[in-house]
Amino acid sequence: MRGAVIYGAGDVRFEDLPEPEIVAPTDAVVRVAATCVCGSDLWQYRGLTPVPEPTPFGHEYCGVVEAVGSDVSSVKAGQFVIGPFFASDNTCPNCRNGVQTSCLHGQLMSGCQAEYVRVPVADGSLVALPDQPDKESLPDLLTLSDVMGTGWFAAEAAGVVPGMTVAVVGDGAVGLCAVLAAREIGAERIIAMSRHEPRQKLAREFGATDIVTERGDDGVAAIKDMTEGIGADAVLECVGTEQAMQQAIDSARPGAFVGFVGVPHDVSINGEELFAKQVGLRGGPAPVRQFLPSLIESVLDGRINPGKVFDLSLPLEQVAEGYRAMDERRAIKTFLQP
Amino acid sequence: MRGAVIYGAGDVRFEDLPEPEIVAPTDAVVRVAATCVCGSDLWQYRGLTPVPEPTPFGHEYCGVVEAVGSDVSSVKAGQFVIGPFFASDNTCPNCRNGVQTSCLHGQLMSGCQAEYVRVPVADGSLVALPDQPDKESLPDLLTLSDVMGTGWFAAEAAGVVPGMTVAVVGDGAVGLCAVLAAREIGAERIIAMSRHEPRQKLAREFGATDIVTERGDDGVAAIKDMTEGIGADAVLECVGTEQAMQQAIDSARPGAFVGFVGVPHDVSINGEELFAKQVGLRGGPAPVRQFLPSLIESVLDGRINPGKVFDLSLPLEQVAEGYRAMDERRAIKTFLQP
Repeated sequence: MRGAVIYGAGDVRFEDLPEPEIVAPTDAVVRVAATCVCGSDLWQYRGLTPVPEPTPFGHEYCGVVEAVGSDVSSVKAGQFVIGPFFASDNTCPNCRNGVQTSCLHGQLMSGCQAEYVRVPVADGSLVALPDQPDKESLPDLLTLSDVMGTGWFAAEAAGVVPGMTVAVVGDGAVGLCAVLAAREIGAERIIAMSRHEPRQKLAREFGATDIVTERGDDGVAAIKDMTEGIGADAVLECVGTEQAMQQAIDSARPGAFVGFVGVPHDVSINGEELFAKQVGLRGGPAPVRQFLPSLIESVLDGRINPGKVFDLSLPLEQVAEGYRAMDERRAIKTFLQP
Repeated sequence: MRGAVIYGAGDVRFEDLPEPEIVAPTDAVVRVAATCVCGSDLWQYRGLTPVPEPTPFGHEYCGVVEAVGSDVSSVKAGQFVIGPFFASDNTCPNCRNGVQTSCLHGQLMSGCQAEYVRVPVADGSLVALPDQPDKESLPDLLTLSDVMGTGWFAAEAAGVVPGMTVAVVGDGAVGLCAVLAAREIGAERIIAMSRHEPRQKLAREFGATDIVTERGDDGVAAIKDMTEGIGADAVLECVGTEQAMQQAIDSARPGAFVGFVGVPHDVSINGEELFAKQVGLRGGPAPVRQFLPSLIESVLDGRINPGKVFDLSLPLEQVAEGYRAMDERRAIKTFLQP
């Protein structure tokens, strides 16, 4: 089969790879129907996270079960499935506590930008659809593997409840999905912080009621102006830089939570400041597995269309161009099909 | 009147001060029945927080209303009242959001280690008892001005619910009160981290089911051993040092919260680590005002005896000795009466 391999900064190649096989009896092999490039992949692509050796890349996927190991009982060959970017058994203490991304027997998926992928702990990880989906809903469904579930977690971690004023820092695919999640949960006012017109447009379509184009202190001042000087009831941090985290903390009202899902890089948080501002923090790699069933329902019902975050669609063999386009901000997110 | 004034590190004097008067129509003046030394006062006493000028000191108090301003309607002269260490109007947006310690019209109390104290925004701040209390319950009631409410907030901020395994970092008065709060909320297992025998004893009396004497990595390892390698469901950080915060974060299971109420000093939190460990943080100066009514009831019903944290009782004029005893760890907390 063929798939994407990252060799280092700016160097993603599409090449021949061994076809994955069932290794453990709890494995499944999935024929990938759609995959994509994640904003977090750009850390390696930009050389900000080292790539020690050539690595099959990509962690988002949906597709058709090709084979299952002898211990797999919840899915079978031929079913269309979505799996989260982090495989989990869904039975260990951490999974039972709702933190599937800390599954004791789980692992981060890799090598999903390929024709086939091996999924460990398949019973816990994969969620099957009732039927084969329409081709048109593939982008929507694929987002549930990561970005839409991650945006949802940002909202949940920040304690969004109906009626709140919510600020979203970051207008990448996750930030946009976070806007959509806040709308679905029932936020009254959703302030998207974005300076890119196409993204602002999509943010509005997803439910943003206000756009703040300023960043840093000016962005914070704008949020304060809109909230009678108090700050937002919940802030969703979807970037991962220290500046974004600072902006998020500063934009939150006392007692609010920042839900942070941007993979942090060199982020140091000042304890005194957090204490004085009385802002809570909760985040991490989103346990998207737990949101899959309800989000699949929302997609199949046509309630949400998170697939709109894909503004570039390419055949998988052009994966390198998919990375370039996102790196150069020509695309929000690249959809890929083998 | 006479009261305590801090001049600098190690220098607390008991001296003549002007008697407080009603300044704003929302003020009350309270004749102090009991006051005490707070662990957080030791930051100044030990020279770790500068004292720019001689300052009337102390922020915990209860006593009898002596006079009220013309706008005060919820309390009247002669009533026995408890006020929180932070005065708040209880009506501003932050107060309505349950964060009285960010009251837009509030302020940190000071000068409470004195015969009389002026209380601003008295309607919001003071809670009156139905009757004059017994002399014996004064220590219990006084803790509600700060430490017991702060311990309660630690438990609430960490999301303690019945059945949880809770770890408490810090065996000062707040840590001990946090143990008591966790018990009252219904934690099943309460692990107190303490290496001082008298404090361990009180922790057990307050509801601790286990004592961990190790600190740092060894302390964390002990907590992990007791929780099948997962970590505690909630961790209450009641110290304020970076080491204590790190110990708290490391002791928490994925998805758990650290409720932090120790006033932080030089605490830097690593964003990557918080993300990877999936541990939430929530803390700040405790909005003890909101816990006052129910905690007063618990004290008057004899359900809780948080006053046991006072192991030294002195006349107010010996306030300097009260500081010395706490600084030298001869006392957990010093109770003072004019």
